[in-house]
This record gives sequence, structure tokens and C-alpha cells, in this order.
Amino acid sequence: MSLLVVGSVALDSVETPFGKRDNVLGGSATYFSAAASLLTKVDVVGVVGEDFPHGQLDFLEARGVRLDGLERVPGRTFRWKGRYGFDLNAAETLDTQLNVFESFQPKLDEQARKAERIFLGNIDPELQMRVLEQAERPKLVCADTMNFWISGKRQALLKLLPRVDVLMVNDGEVRQLAGESNVLKAAHAAKRMGAKAVVVKRGEYGALLVDGEESFFAPAFPLADVIDPTGAGDTFAGGFLGLLDRLDASDPAALRQATVMGSTIASFTVEQFSLDRLRSLELSQVRKRFDAFRGLTHFEPLPDHVG
Amino acid sequence: MSLLVVGSVALDSVETPFGKRDNVLGGSATYFSAAASLLTKVDVVGVVGEDFPHGQLDFLEARGVRLDGLERVPGRTFRWKGRYGFDLNAAETLDTQLNVFESFQPKLDEQARKAERIFLGNIDPELQMRVLEQAERPKLVCADTMNFWISGKRQALLKLLPRVDVLMVNDGEVRQLAGESNVLKAAHAAKRMGAKAVVVKRGEYGALLVDGEESFFAPAFPLADVIDPTGAGDTFAGGFLGLLDRLDASDPAALRQATVMGSTIASFTVEQFSLDRLRSLELSQVRKRFDAFRGLTHFEPLPDHVG
Repeated sequence: MSLLVVGSVALDSVETPFGKRDNVLGGSATYFSAAASLLTKVDVVGVVGEDFPHGQLDFLEARGVRLDGLERVPGRTFRWKGRYGFDLNAAETLDTQLNVFESFQPKLDEQARKAERIFLGNIDPELQMRVLEQAERPKLVCADTMNFWISGKRQALLKLLPRVDVLMVNDGEVRQLAGESNVLKAAHAAKRMGAKAVVVKRGEYGALLVDGEESFFAPAFPLADVIDPTGAGDTFAGGFLGLLDRLDASDPAALRQATVMGSTIASFTVEQFSLDRLRSLELSQVRKRFDAFRGLTHFEPLPDHVG
Repeated sequence: MSLLVVGSVALDSVETPFGKRDNVLGGSATYFSAAASLLTKVDVVGVVGEDFPHGQLDFLEARGVRLDGLERVPGRTFRWKGRYGFDLNAAETLDTQLNVFESFQPKLDEQARKAERIFLGNIDPELQMRVLEQAERPKLVCADTMNFWISGKRQALLKLLPRVDVLMVNDGEVRQLAGESNVLKAAHAAKRMGAKAVVVKRGEYGALLVDGEESFFAPAFPLADVIDPTGAGDTFAGGFLGLLDRLDASDPAALRQATVMGSTIASFTVEQFSLDRLRSLELSQVRKRFDAFRGLTHFEPLPDHVG
């Protein structure tokens, strides 16, 4: 069992209809590792500036997350500022300051190179490829990306996809990548581009897994209190890969369980600002909600006399 | 087994990214009965004008739909004209001509009064109430409504809700009714207004059933070809009530099966324009897709060592 994440560690300023937080912990690698560390050992590769309050990550180290690959370099930490309206599905980015992240060059130490599973957070696909070039023999590679790279670094992304086992994107991204408005057709097109499986994250509407010819759908857990959706996608990925690493499996049944685990942990993330809910989250609570997911989607077959 | 629908029979002109149809068969009672008649006997109460091409309904009569309650009166039939963009979830209404529907007064004959289950299509809540006043002893009443009535006839709607077993609306409608942006909270608020259960239709994202404290989620069947979403909601209702009537049940397990049946039949509706797909649809095909829904949402429990 070993899981590597390469991505951002950030300071976020977020406003939602339910409140406002300034310079709180954020970033894809941070959210991912907070989720995945409930299930397995996680290695982080990323970069922060001199201004980063390192004590903020103590709770991750306490959960066994290895931060040796988190470089600290001169300059300021990556900062993101965003706002959500009542439609919590869509963030409006108010400001992005790449800062030290702009010249980030992921370096994997000896232990990180041996990782069995790798999550490539949403960074330049050329950097994502450089991570894979350093990795020795991963059993599974999962990659996120975004509109900026799909249009601006398309060739690099297309070169990456054949090395990706699970492409994990939202519906707008898969549509843009494939140039196809139907999400199912777009996911199959992404598979033809090389990704072995595609997970389409649909925010409060759940997630669709397209693996081979089969599809699997996991709803988002219906929540009465959604406070801040930031990080839902990255904790989805953390739950997904954390479970695959824990199970040491990637057969179709495991991919389904992993999709539900992703939805489950993401549903906790959004209940509080920043990583606040994840700090206190325990695996027993996660398991309880995973089981409740079965109740949420279970139905009996039709009796024989119908049909 | 007996199921009554009261609603519109219309001529629609529809444009989607995949084509255009003028003056084709439409209307809530039409879509509903085409779906429900695959499962049970349906009685229609509605009104058309002298211009209505009655032969269009022959396929419904062939399936045992009783049209004795479909009045034919002087004037023109209700017409709706709409357009869908690439986001097939949202129709833009270009023109609505109520015509004979404007002075529609639903009249139930002796047989219709004895209906065990009633679907109140999206009409003035005062008319919906008049239907219930004529009904003798329905086992189950399901009602649709829309933004126009929620704001314009709120008192009449609030008076109706305590007589409704299943309120069936889309997410925008339940949010508006409850004045609450969270869909789950809004559904519970609608229950406190009197509806015993609430089904929230979410277009391509599926449907949520809130019944007691429990929730159930049925995804929309992922389709590669969605041609025209018109009528999806009414065929959802037709599948839902058609199955409950066929099973003569409304326990929680039956409500879940009915929700999946609604999603199943709606998924056929959108594959062609107007009622074209429903004309040729057979129950054996419906059953096959219902079973495939189980494959779409099934996942194994977590092994004991996780959690």
C-alpha cells in the first residue's frame, strides 16, 4: 500500500452564502491527502512559500501523511480566492496567485518513486508527465485536469492520457475535452483518447464511472447543510484512490466501491469551511455513511408479473 | 387497478439541437397516459379543440386508455412552442396559447370518480382541488405544479397539499415552494406543508424521493442519444403511478420501485421527438432497462477490515 499525490498546497479565501474565510488551508494535494489518509499511507509532493503556516499540516502528519516531498521555497504560497452563490455547484474565481507554484518542478524521492498508486492533481500536463517519468512502476495512475489545460496544453494532455488509468474530471471538462455535449459519449471519447476509465464528477448530482462498456452512478449524499464546496472534488479523489490502495485492487467492483467512497468523503468535506470537517473526521463515521449510501440507492427487482 | 390523469392534451412545436417538429402531439395527460398504459388501465380527463387530429390518440386507445373524459369543444387546442439549447435540462418557452384549455373545467364521469389513483397534471391548483372534490375515495393522489401557480395561486396550492400523497416537482419548483435553496430541506418543508412524500425531478441528474425521514435517489439512465426532453417529467409520473397502480401498493419499497420505473420510462421518452418512442415502446423493453438500472447503481459493501 502506497499512494502518492502531486498537487497544490494553498491558502484559500472563500465566500459562500453561509460565511467567509480568509487565508485558510486549501489546495488539491492537501484536500486529497486529508481524505486518503483515513484509508491508507499518503506521500505528498508539492511546494509552499516561506509564509506557509506549517503547523496547519500537523493533523496530516498525525495521520501518517509523509510531507518530505513538500518543498518550502522562497516566495509566497499559492493563493486562490473564490466565491459561491446559492448555486453551490459553480465557484467564481476572484483571484489566483500562483506564486511559488508557478515554477514548481515535482521531484520524487526514492520512496515516492516506488508509489503503487499516483494521483496527478490539476497541474500542467507536462508536469504530470514528468511525475510519471520519475515513477518506477505504479499499478494505477489517476489524473485530474481543467479547462485551462484542455485548451492551452492539449497536445501534452493527449500524450498523457494513454498513461492514465482513471481520468477524473467534471462534466464541463469531459465535454470540452471530447468536443461532445453528451456526457456519456464524451466519457467514451476520453477512453478512446487513452484513459482506461473515466470518472465524471457532477457536484451535488453525484459521479459517473465509465469503465469498459459499463456505467456506474453514485449520487451525491443528499445533505441538509452544505457550507463550502471547496475541495469536494479533491477529497472525492482522495477517497477513491485511498480505498483502491487500501484494497490493493482496481477490478470493476473495487472501482464502484471507490466511487462511492469518493462521494462519501466529499459529502463530509462540504459540511464545513476549508478542511475543518476533515480534521476531525474518523473512518468509523465514513463507513457509517458509506453504508447509508446503500440505503439511499437500494431498490427491489420488479415482481415477475410486471413485464 | 384504476388510474386517472387530469391534464393537458396539446400540440407542441419543439426545436432542439437535433431537429425541429411542428404541431406534434404533446401535453401532460398525453405523455402520462402513454407511459402509464404500459402498466395499467388509464382514464384521461382533458380538453381539445376542433382542430385536434383525434387519430393521433389511436395508439393510446389501442393500449386500453379510456378517452371518454377527453372533451372536444369549439376553438383551438392548447399549443406550446419551445426550444432547447445544448443544455437539454432547460426549455425556453417561445409561445403558449392556452386556447380551449383556458376555460377547462375537469368533469369526472361515474367511472373516473371511482379511480383508485389520481395524477393531477400541472394545472391551476383550484382545478386540481375540484378534481379531488369529485373523486370518491382515491388510495393515492399525486400532483405536479409549476412556478406560475406557486407564486400566483399559492393559497390554493397550500390548501391542496394536505390532500396530496406525492408531490412531484422539479428542483427549482420545490426550492421556490419552500423558499429554501437546499433541495433536501425544501422537500422536508413541502412535507410539513402537507404532502406525505415528495419526488424531486432533476432532469438528466435523476430523481430524489423523500418519504418519511428516508431518502432514495434514482439516477437518470445515462443515454448516448437525447433528442427531445419534452414530456420526460410527465412520463416519469406515468411510470411512477402506473407501477403503483399495477402493484396496488404504496409502501416505501413500492415508492422506490416506482421512482426507478419513472426514470426508466422517461429515459425512453427523450430518445425521440414528441411521443414517437412511446408509441412503439413495449413493456418487455421497459423491464429490461429497469433491470439495467440495478446494474447501474449496484455496489458491494465494504469489507470488514475497512472502518
